[in-house]
Amino acid sequence: MIVIMKPNATAAEIGAVIRRAESLGVTTHPIYGDNRTVVALVGDLTRVSRESFNAMDGVNTTVRIQEPYKLASRTTRPENSVIDVGGAVRIGGPEVVVMAGPCSIESWEQLDATARHVIGAGASILRGGAFKPRSSPFSFQGMGFEGAALLRQAGQALKAPVVSEVTDSHFVERMAQEVDILQIGARNMQNYTLLRAVGETNKPCLLKRGLAATVTEWLQAADYVLAAGTAQVILCERGIRSFEDSTRFTLDISAVPVIKRQSHLPVIVDPSHAAGHYALVPGLARAAIAAGADGLLIEVHPDPANALSDGLQSLTFSDFARLMVECRQIAEAIGRTL
Amino acid sequence: MIVIMKPNATAAEIGAVIRRAESLGVTTHPIYGDNRTVVALVGDLTRVSRESFNAMDGVNTTVRIQEPYKLASRTTRPENSVIDVGGAVRIGGPEVVVMAGPCSIESWEQLDATARHVIGAGASILRGGAFKPRSSPFSFQGMGFEGAALLRQAGQALKAPVVSEVTDSHFVERMAQEVDILQIGARNMQNYTLLRAVGETNKPCLLKRGLAATVTEWLQAADYVLAAGTAQVILCERGIRSFEDSTRFTLDISAVPVIKRQSHLPVIVDPSHAAGHYALVPGLARAAIAAGADGLLIEVHPDPANALSDGLQSLTFSDFARLMVECRQIAEAIGRTL
Amino acid sequence: MIVIMKPNATAAEIGAVIRRAESLGVTTHPIYGDNRTVVALVGDLTRVSRESFNAMDGVNTTVRIQEPYKLASRTTRPENSVIDVGGAVRIGGPEVVVMAGPCSIESWEQLDATARHVIGAGASILRGGAFKPRSSPFSFQGMGFEGAALLRQAGQALKAPVVSEVTDSHFVERMAQEVDILQIGARNMQNYTLLRAVGETNKPCLLKRGLAATVTEWLQAADYVLAAGTAQVILCERGIRSFEDSTRFTLDISAVPVIKRQSHLPVIVDPSHAAGHYALVPGLARAAIAAGADGLLIEVHPDPANALSDGLQSLTFSDFARLMVECRQIAEAIGRTL
Amino acid sequence: MIVIMKPNATAAEIGAVIRRAESLGVTTHPIYGDNRTVVALVGDLTRVSRESFNAMDGVNTTVRIQEPYKLASRTTRPENSVIDVGGAVRIGGPEVVVMAGPCSIESWEQLDATARHVIGAGASILRGGAFKPRSSPFSFQGMGFEGAALLRQAGQALKAPVVSEVTDSHFVERMAQEVDILQIGARNMQNYTLLRAVGETNKPCLLKRGLAATVTEWLQAADYVLAAGTAQVILCERGIRSFEDSTRFTLDISAVPVIKRQSHLPVIVDPSHAAGHYALVPGLARAAIAAGADGLLIEVHPDPANALSDGLQSLTFSDFARLMVECRQIAEAIGRTL
Repeated sequence: MIVIMKPNATAAEIGAVIRRAESLGVTTHPIYGDNRTVVALVGDLTRVSRESFNAMDGVNTTVRIQEPYKLASRTTRPENSVIDVGGAVRIGGPEVVVMAGPCSIESWEQLDATARHVIGAGASILRGGAFKPRSSPFSFQGMGFEGAALLRQAGQALKAPVVSEVTDSHFVERMAQEVDILQIGARNMQNYTLLRAVGETNKPCLLKRGLAATVTEWLQAADYVLAAGTAQVILCERGIRSFEDSTRFTLDISAVPVIKRQSHLPVIVDPSHAAGHYALVPGLARAAIAAGADGLLIEVHPDPANALSDGLQSLTFSDFARLMVECRQIAEAIGRTL
Repeated sequence: MIVIMKPNATAAEIGAVIRRAESLGVTTHPIYGDNRTVVALVGDLTRVSRESFNAMDGVNTTVRIQEPYKLASRTTRPENSVIDVGGAVRIGGPEVVVMAGPCSIESWEQLDATARHVIGAGASILRGGAFKPRSSPFSFQGMGFEGAALLRQAGQALKAPVVSEVTDSHFVERMAQEVDILQIGARNMQNYTLLRAVGETNKPCLLKRGLAATVTEWLQAADYVLAAGTAQVILCERGIRSFEDSTRFTLDISAVPVIKRQSHLPVIVDPSHAAGHYALVPGLARAAIAAGADGLLIEVHPDPANALSDGLQSLTFSDFARLMVECRQIAEAIGRTL
Repeated sequence: MIVIMKPNATAAEIGAVIRRAESLGVTTHPIYGDNRTVVALVGDLTRVSRESFNAMDGVNTTVRIQEPYKLASRTTRPENSVIDVGGAVRIGGPEVVVMAGPCSIESWEQLDATARHVIGAGASILRGGAFKPRSSPFSFQGMGFEGAALLRQAGQALKAPVVSEVTDSHFVERMAQEVDILQIGARNMQNYTLLRAVGETNKPCLLKRGLAATVTEWLQAADYVLAAGTAQVILCERGIRSFEDSTRFTLDISAVPVIKRQSHLPVIVDPSHAAGHYALVPGLARAAIAAGADGLLIEVHPDPANALSDGLQSLTFSDFARLMVECRQIAEAIGRTL
Repeated sequence: MIVIMKPNATAAEIGAVIRRAESLGVTTHPIYGDNRTVVALVGDLTRVSRESFNAMDGVNTTVRIQEPYKLASRTTRPENSVIDVGGAVRIGGPEVVVMAGPCSIESWEQLDATARHVIGAGASILRGGAFKPRSSPFSFQGMGFEGAALLRQAGQALKAPVVSEVTDSHFVERMAQEVDILQIGARNMQNYTLLRAVGETNKPCLLKRGLAATVTEWLQAADYVLAAGTAQVILCERGIRSFEDSTRFTLDISAVPVIKRQSHLPVIVDPSHAAGHYALVPGLARAAIAAGADGLLIEVHPDPANALSDGLQSLTFSDFARLMVECRQIAEAIGRTL
């Protein structure tokens, strides 16, 4: 960490910074410039709070030199993490993994038909929402555990792992019995009680990026899950908030190569929520794979116009089959499989 | 709701829209223009999903005419709601209410000294963080229920109501015994399990705006709390995410008059988190009152350079005393008291 | 256009809206709902200002039904525009077109070496900055017309068309003699005097998206160029402003499929400015082609560490050669050539 | 500047950084930590480009210690600048200055009536748009120099200075004969040819913030004007782009105290463009003064529903008179006059 003093900082103020740093067991290197002094702090900074130095008299600002996340950092683990899902699918390896299914589980018929289609077309993992966080309390909120049980049944019938969102720490234990991957949604990326609870299970965690979270904050959230014990976190970019209104969110495609540089964790992309419109999904899905994403999360519905949620962004069966062909071609063009 | 068809929509597609709307008990008014057709839907639209119309063949888009929140809307309740806090303080009336105290409760000594000072200087409500949601799992996480108990004790000693954040639905019942106002933090604005749990208590709820939430989504979140039973929600603007990096967040001062037009709920402002720097807090606090806010939430610490969290944005005791004088002058200039 | 009245609008206010609309030669369709009235306006709305209806008594808001751009709209011209550059290159057809070269033209040696390399590796068009808009007046501002003359010379030697930015309406005539494509930079996307001046030449225009411009505003800016007479506009997505700070800008990859739906104009992507870092450029370039972009704009420098501007985002010669191989594979995977 | 090396940077890479810095006449202070090395550069860094160090092998990133603007910085000039407008009005002193008038000059009758009213109600400076940059080429573009001449005439009749926007460098000389303050609009904040041209006149410049410009970039733009010779720049905050859509732009009220800390230049606020709706203007105007702004820029129209531009955000005469009373009370509450 570098502490940058104000131009008119006094010797006493500089001395106070040095003494505090040394009292924390850190070595200091003051550098006296023509206009101002900076103090470099070297050593184990785990317990050193930038905020408290920022608030000292004579300090202009502080600059962090090391990234503020640890367990998720590629510095901590240089090689890629590959997440094994139920012995059946590996995420983060050479294969691009597609997770697909309906936004909301609505009935056995709807789920079963969709599951057969998406797994038949080449998806590896079945997705389906049981607990739906909705902006309005007057919207459909999902089938809850009943839906999760249907999902497990549909997955078992097809020998496909399943993924579903868990929205409260007290649902985690029971959901962990129903699904192979516990999803934490964008709205809950900083629900730390939930992050810890998911990290304490032995299930892989699919951690969606918060819609106003920086990549740094997202990796700090991954640190919460990892610190709770698990080593199995999959990151999922799903669009961030910006001023642009021609799409539902702004897919931050750059996050894919950024994550690959900064972290050892696999990263997948959800083009459905980002786009908000089915016609834009194929282009974004292809772009995600071309950018280096390890997988996709795609919403599919047998009859989008009658979906109970997110119909506009759901693909039909035939759209999805065509998407899989296109994505496979992109994956092969960059030397991966799908 | 208005359904706008594509320019080349067929008569069959227009007919399908009309039939679906009428099957939902809604009256339709098709308007046939030179280039395209629009269909206006009139009646009780509570159960009509825009999404499902958007996904129909031939539909270009739909336009909502009524706001998507109900209980929080001024249309539902034209007169201002005034929230009574423990019979001692009324929020939303002519008096501007200041809530102040430390970001984190660190010890009895720190809390007690701060409480005496802020209440002595004119604050009506004591704030203090017991459960601290922090970006990194390696940062100080708060004293938990032990801190909440200290807060209750400090408030009782000074006959001042207290407010503190609750971060998980399963802490709500116990926290409701310790505090007079249950705060829902920005990161949890769309943690719907938590919103419902707080709404089911008989305590007022201080609902902070999510850092990427529109005013509309914020009022929808208020609808979750209100729908759970309580009528006591206080909104708190605390800055949103933007590209500007000279402040911690961008205080959306316009949200104050917007909320006053759209909703009957009181709205207060937290200039401390928005600014992220103590030197900017007074200007923003004065601006908030001038814009029409019903109160302020201010962080104060006896020794900011040694605070365990958010020291840089905390005011010293003397800063806070001066702030109260300035704010009182602004309040009086617009015909309110403080 | 739909005029949505307030719930309590009076019959007189509704009547005034209808009379104003009809005085403008527009047919009106009032729809009287339970809670409020809406008035649909049908006919030629070119001269009807939404703003003036918005400001009328009793009006809540108005909703536009047709997009606010015309010449750039796919409604105006359903088939794709293909821009012919000097009879040598066609942009918007089946071929993906790469424009490459240094950010700034620094010397004949630097430009010539770069030009030979990028054209040799498969780029079709040579880029180079002569007039550099820089955030600080104390930074290098480019070689001006001297640089533009070098660019023309380098292009002619290799029989490659050249593109360079023009920053002021009064430079347009002279720049049009030096270059094959006139580039309008992001900072000038709404410099309407410049847009018109470029549109009055017979040269193709490369119109970069403003860093806070919506896709709609970008297409309106294209309308300025098109309205001045030319039919040759190429759009270029180069990243927008968001809160994310791990990249220089946030590449809005979704803009590519959105533009393809809304407009007939070709769209290319500049991954160099968006990323701000050479290591991220290849992933974004591949993603752009996979998403459907008609081309790329790439910065290349013989010695990035000694570049006078934007060295960090410039590719070396060997990086660029590798990028071309990767991009060609993606282009072929989607049935295009490069 | 601090150069932060990568954890695995070699001694040769560190040596190259040191040699380059010393070749630029800068003193270096390498600090060798456990994990990585940082090199502090001390001395005159005016000609040192961060970018070129960023692009060197082994460098992770660089950190700026001094702000990148100079002439606008409070470090350069600690005392406030007060701008004298035509010997009649002083901006940046104890008086809060209100500039008011129509968005567009539409006719002598409209301008004259508005001018009489706003000056009569206490505004010091008359505003009026002659050249209107509009998003669509099909919208009203202003009366041009004819409008500017009317503005001069209206100002002279009331002995009030006038301000109007200039949109192209080649209009500057002629506009400088018509107006007392040359306004540079948000869309042109980085039109550097225009900035220089305005800075070369002897007229004060009102520099609006670009809608995606950081405060730092805004002060760099001020540096362009100041570097051209003038010492008379007035900054104007008018709202930035964010995701929030209940207002036209997001007024960044924090920019007022931030500018006051970072710069010696006066700063005013335009609540009309930020809000986009007349009903929100008074709250934002009061907030601006309470936050410490040196003035306001307000749109007023005799008949907003018939305005040729921006009618919705224009105040009527009676609204404006009431606003002046409210603003005067706020100004007095903080010890200023209006």
